[in-house]
Amino acid sequence: MNTAERLARLRERLREQELDAIVITHPSNRFWLSGFTGEDIPPNESAGHLVISHSATIVVTSRLNSVLAQQEAIGFEVFDRERDFARGDALVLQEMGVRRVGFEDRAILYRDVQVLRETLGPAVELIAVGTLVDDLRARKTPDELERIRQAQAVTDAAFQAVLAELRPGLSERAVALRLEQALVEFGADGIAFPIAVASGPHGALPHYRPTQRRLSTGEPIVIDMGAIVAGYCADLTRTVWIGQPDQQLERIFSIVLAALEAAEAGIRPGMTGREADALARQVIAEAGYGDAFTHSLGHGVGVRVHEAPALSPASDQILEPGHVVTIEPGIYVPGWGGVRIEDLAVVRESGIEVLTRTPKRIDLAGS
Amino acid sequence: MNTAERLARLRERLREQELDAIVITHPSNRFWLSGFTGEDIPPNESAGHLVISHSATIVVTSRLNSVLAQQEAIGFEVFDRERDFARGDALVLQEMGVRRVGFEDRAILYRDVQVLRETLGPAVELIAVGTLVDDLRARKTPDELERIRQAQAVTDAAFQAVLAELRPGLSERAVALRLEQALVEFGADGIAFPIAVASGPHGALPHYRPTQRRLSTGEPIVIDMGAIVAGYCADLTRTVWIGQPDQQLERIFSIVLAALEAAEAGIRPGMTGREADALARQVIAEAGYGDAFTHSLGHGVGVRVHEAPALSPASDQILEPGHVVTIEPGIYVPGWGGVRIEDLAVVRESGIEVLTRTPKRIDLAGS
Repeated sequence: MNTAERLARLRERLREQELDAIVITHPSNRFWLSGFTGEDIPPNESAGHLVISHSATIVVTSRLNSVLAQQEAIGFEVFDRERDFARGDALVLQEMGVRRVGFEDRAILYRDVQVLRETLGPAVELIAVGTLVDDLRARKTPDELERIRQAQAVTDAAFQAVLAELRPGLSERAVALRLEQALVEFGADGIAFPIAVASGPHGALPHYRPTQRRLSTGEPIVIDMGAIVAGYCADLTRTVWIGQPDQQLERIFSIVLAALEAAEAGIRPGMTGREADALARQVIAEAGYGDAFTHSLGHGVGVRVHEAPALSPASDQILEPGHVVTIEPGIYVPGWGGVRIEDLAVVRESGIEVLTRTPKRIDLAGS
Repeated sequence: MNTAERLARLRERLREQELDAIVITHPSNRFWLSGFTGEDIPPNESAGHLVISHSATIVVTSRLNSVLAQQEAIGFEVFDRERDFARGDALVLQEMGVRRVGFEDRAILYRDVQVLRETLGPAVELIAVGTLVDDLRARKTPDELERIRQAQAVTDAAFQAVLAELRPGLSERAVALRLEQALVEFGADGIAFPIAVASGPHGALPHYRPTQRRLSTGEPIVIDMGAIVAGYCADLTRTVWIGQPDQQLERIFSIVLAALEAAEAGIRPGMTGREADALARQVIAEAGYGDAFTHSLGHGVGVRVHEAPALSPASDQILEPGHVVTIEPGIYVPGWGGVRIEDLAVVRESGIEVLTRTPKRIDLAGS
């Protein structure tokens, strides 16, 4: 991973905001800037923080994680002499003699900022930087794009391999486990998020966790999954059925598919996330299901499966070439189920390039 | 889940601290108080907050999660009319007309407290309550203990089933996946944390994630795993080997086992976490491996796999009957590997009751 270039981009931003240093607490930003893969146990057991000034790069971590940090965070010093990382950050910052320090207010615990304040005293100014680093991650380099492409290829391959095994009577959970196994067999380092297999009425809850419910013929089965390859995520949703779909499923599926196609045909760099979202939302609203599309159209994907930019009715973010986003309209009918179709795409100069290779409509034989 | 009793205990504490209401942001506390299982995407995509006053119980969540919240959080109103949960909390609190509001400073983002402050204005006082709710969870009821016992029984059964399948040449990742599958087969609802299978030198990194490395004979293989059953976690570590262990493995294993036995024989209610930790640490230090026991002896287990009380050199927490804790000494030698043995136990009036049924020493046939 070319962290030198990333650090240079970060330091440019620090200079613009007249910051002497920054404390990084967002786990994905930590990985993106350092390569350190230590795992947090949310909400309050962090694997480590980074402290980055114009001349120094330090991982503040526990003894437990210091060997891993030394191996992975090339070019970083490892500071593991304090159990409380916020206090460790403060000690490191004091030694640097810095005055203006940025912190990630949307990814740091309230008490950690209190500890920084109390330890550093009034001579050091703490500045909330919001999503400064998250935003740096949005536009992907060719190297990052290649990893995402690989992660999506693994996801497509694993999904299609398991499709052939779907039978009425299999439990949602058995299917989810089989999908996870297939992801690993096809080369995933892990899963980007817990795999969702939501059959029949369960599909009305967009992120339902798989249960012991068994698949039946004719009902919608929503499957949402993604591999991680070399630190980068993929994201795929398809809604499938075994045997004959009923009329409602046919109708809703065709509306969602039309919404997806409208978005894929219409998205351009320079649009806001709101405008992109509206392309699909309008199709669904015109078909009379506006209230049933209960989430946003999509989100950025990279080292984190949800990142900038947001394609949502509330998003002012401007789409740029190099952004990688999901496009995933859905319709959810309580008591009946749901249909969601999700592609992963990269924004190009003149539109989007869809990375997903799995067919949108899949009719599985009923016996 | 008897949330009525839990809410009564929480309100008693609110009264003691003269709080009119509390905002709950810790996901485990949210589940424990409401039964809502919505899942967060850390660090900043929460599935919802709770606002609890002396007369009202409210889930503040997104439209995406509101159906699930309505089904699961019995007796709670669901407020899903604001995308920003901190702003939603503030609107709900304003309507309540409260003056003094507690918040979980160790489980809330800095910017969420800023939003609460800005929206509520100076008339409402915000009080950091630290781990007030986490501490309420530490002492388990008989019903909770039964669930933990079940989760541990499932974990023991799955571990022993897969042991019989271990062979040189299997990858760490294949073993981890098989263990996860076995947990589900034996009745787990899910895993309490990502399963660790660390073979040979990988065992020196206490929480290493399984890789494509293949098992060999004679080397230590550290396996750390736990089921979730009905919302409650188990936790089990064993270090096993295939064929003949070398002399270093024999020696280190016997030291760790002696440390475990000393702790299990010596732990009593009324001790501090520090005193409990010292029982094992002393055995390891006297054998010359003090620096190689790089983590604390144990931690509480419940709806979260790491919770109060901490058994560590820094812990002043007093052990009480009804606490459920891990006891897990370990020795880690960089380049060689590690040995950790972990039992789960409940603190009783006169000592501890070990819940783990898996044998401590397991010699697997080499061919």
